[in-house]
Amino acid sequence: MSHLLTEIPPLDKEIGQKVRAYIDTLTKPLGSLGRLEGMAIQLAEMTSDEFPVVTPPGVIVFAADHGVVEEGVSAYPQEVTVQMVMNFLNRGAAINVFSKQIGAAFEVVDVGVAQDICADGVVNQKVRYGTANFYKQDAMTREEADKAIAVGYGRAEKMIQQGSKCLILGEMGIGNTTASSAVLAVLSGQSIDKLVGRGTGIDSGEIPHKQEVIVRAIEARKPDRNDPIDVLAKVGGLEMAAITGAMLAGASHRIPILVDGFICTVAALLAKEICSHASEYMIVGHRSVEPGHDIALQLLGKQPILDLGMRLGEGSGAAVAFPILQSATLMLKEMATFTSAGISKE
Amino acid sequence: MSHLLTEIPPLDKEIGQKVRAYIDTLTKPLGSLGRLEGMAIQLAEMTSDEFPVVTPPGVIVFAADHGVVEEGVSAYPQEVTVQMVMNFLNRGAAINVFSKQIGAAFEVVDVGVAQDICADGVVNQKVRYGTANFYKQDAMTREEADKAIAVGYGRAEKMIQQGSKCLILGEMGIGNTTASSAVLAVLSGQSIDKLVGRGTGIDSGEIPHKQEVIVRAIEARKPDRNDPIDVLAKVGGLEMAAITGAMLAGASHRIPILVDGFICTVAALLAKEICSHASEYMIVGHRSVEPGHDIALQLLGKQPILDLGMRLGEGSGAAVAFPILQSATLMLKEMATFTSAGISKE
Repeated sequence: MSHLLTEIPPLDKEIGQKVRAYIDTLTKPLGSLGRLEGMAIQLAEMTSDEFPVVTPPGVIVFAADHGVVEEGVSAYPQEVTVQMVMNFLNRGAAINVFSKQIGAAFEVVDVGVAQDICADGVVNQKVRYGTANFYKQDAMTREEADKAIAVGYGRAEKMIQQGSKCLILGEMGIGNTTASSAVLAVLSGQSIDKLVGRGTGIDSGEIPHKQEVIVRAIEARKPDRNDPIDVLAKVGGLEMAAITGAMLAGASHRIPILVDGFICTVAALLAKEICSHASEYMIVGHRSVEPGHDIALQLLGKQPILDLGMRLGEGSGAAVAFPILQSATLMLKEMATFTSAGISKE
Repeated sequence: MSHLLTEIPPLDKEIGQKVRAYIDTLTKPLGSLGRLEGMAIQLAEMTSDEFPVVTPPGVIVFAADHGVVEEGVSAYPQEVTVQMVMNFLNRGAAINVFSKQIGAAFEVVDVGVAQDICADGVVNQKVRYGTANFYKQDAMTREEADKAIAVGYGRAEKMIQQGSKCLILGEMGIGNTTASSAVLAVLSGQSIDKLVGRGTGIDSGEIPHKQEVIVRAIEARKPDRNDPIDVLAKVGGLEMAAITGAMLAGASHRIPILVDGFICTVAALLAKEICSHASEYMIVGHRSVEPGHDIALQLLGKQPILDLGMRLGEGSGAAVAFPILQSATLMLKEMATFTSAGISKE
């Protein structure tokens, strides 16, 4: 992974200062566009462009399965992962609808679905047929975790080369809130009570069992909090690793990353653990109702754009938030200044 | 105004029930799209359409001046109203940029700017040359308030006839946070401390003066809390009256109204006072930092979509929120169902 560590450039703070001053010349009261102004400055610093562009965005959904579903931690059977991949290919899922709305390039990558997928359109980069059940053994080997990170890195680089100016990463994997809660438990050191929720929809009565599975797995696997690859390999997931890699690629290429909900934010924390500069290229799209998300956001040091009670995953919350990032860039590019418009300043 | 009172149809709750049930068949965990689901149901109930459409939206910015600026309540001189109208016509203001982004029809209406505006493109419906200084006399006559309401009603009807499926109303008028705070003080009965903010940008040290002007004006004018036209005429504004009228027109035609910030929300309260059903056709785009906005939102009984620290007016916050309404409608129209996609339900 060492080549990934050194390639993330620092933010261009000089451009940021310039854009900050320029925004104050636009025909509006000072500061009156609130967080849009901050987003415009961040995007300028990320892209090193006074007039940053985020269109077209690129959406990559990584799909993989989780052996830990054997422990009865999910509301849906494992076969739903592959069924949803088919739904993505047929353009029927929420992320398809929102990707189309925002004019995004879209792809779905099989990085570890438990079955073979015989269908046109899916990008086959399967590292293994789902993770092992981490309640009983490590989810994957260290090499497999590295490989899944590299898959994400590669797909994101390709998406960027094809012209995407902002990355939205999504996931599909029955059981992945369990794996994400386990990773977050290790990274945050917080009590499991605060980190585990209903996921896609288990009853609240089933949460204690999900918590116990995670606590016991961490006790047995002993992931090293200071080694993100070890954490991923022991209690993580293949799609999480791929998202981590894709985020590192985005940051390396100065491409803004619009982070989705709980699982993506945990992957973002792993990217930050691998290279602390990575998180400087991230803006968080929305606040999920999954309870661990707030803790993950605190660790990442980010405030989400939207808070609409969403908890779907797939990248859907980030895609819904995307037009607001675009508004921030258009404000910069298209608004008149007080001077150009001949308007009296206060 | 009596013809406006009877024309607002009730929401179509039957369609709402149908859409609620349909949303639960879409390929996503139950309830996982959060407030998007509630918005889709509301839009269906408003439009009486199982697959409501909000595009293209129509944006109307009403401009007018306020005599009370003589009392030194604003950060900007009165001439900025007309300068900003020119900026709207030249497509340089924030609302132009965001209207273009969302593909909106756009018009700017002079309903009471203090100067003549000699420019192509502005809709001249001037009721009078700005309001009188309500610190010293009634802002306008009751007939003028009625006339300004009718201007808004008529422009909105025209916009709807030309095909707009969702209305965004904006305002420009130096001094209009003062008038809006005065109206809200009357309607809410709340202490002035909670209702008055920095507007477009006066220093916090100037707020007590702004508060005193409002309190004394209300004492002197004695607006009748139970007569919204009286409140508008005595301490309101011409653009506020026009927005009130436009909202009544939207509701009458079952066209969803995406409410902007503080001034628009106060106009929405006046529309609700005129006809209580009017507010059923409203969704609030964003939470303004103007302190009175929260009180106005409570009275209106609405939770805004966005909370991004904006306070620009012009309809800008609503325009930035619009793509999220559109996401809600596209979810309904384009997502696959569990049955059509062949996916196992929990």
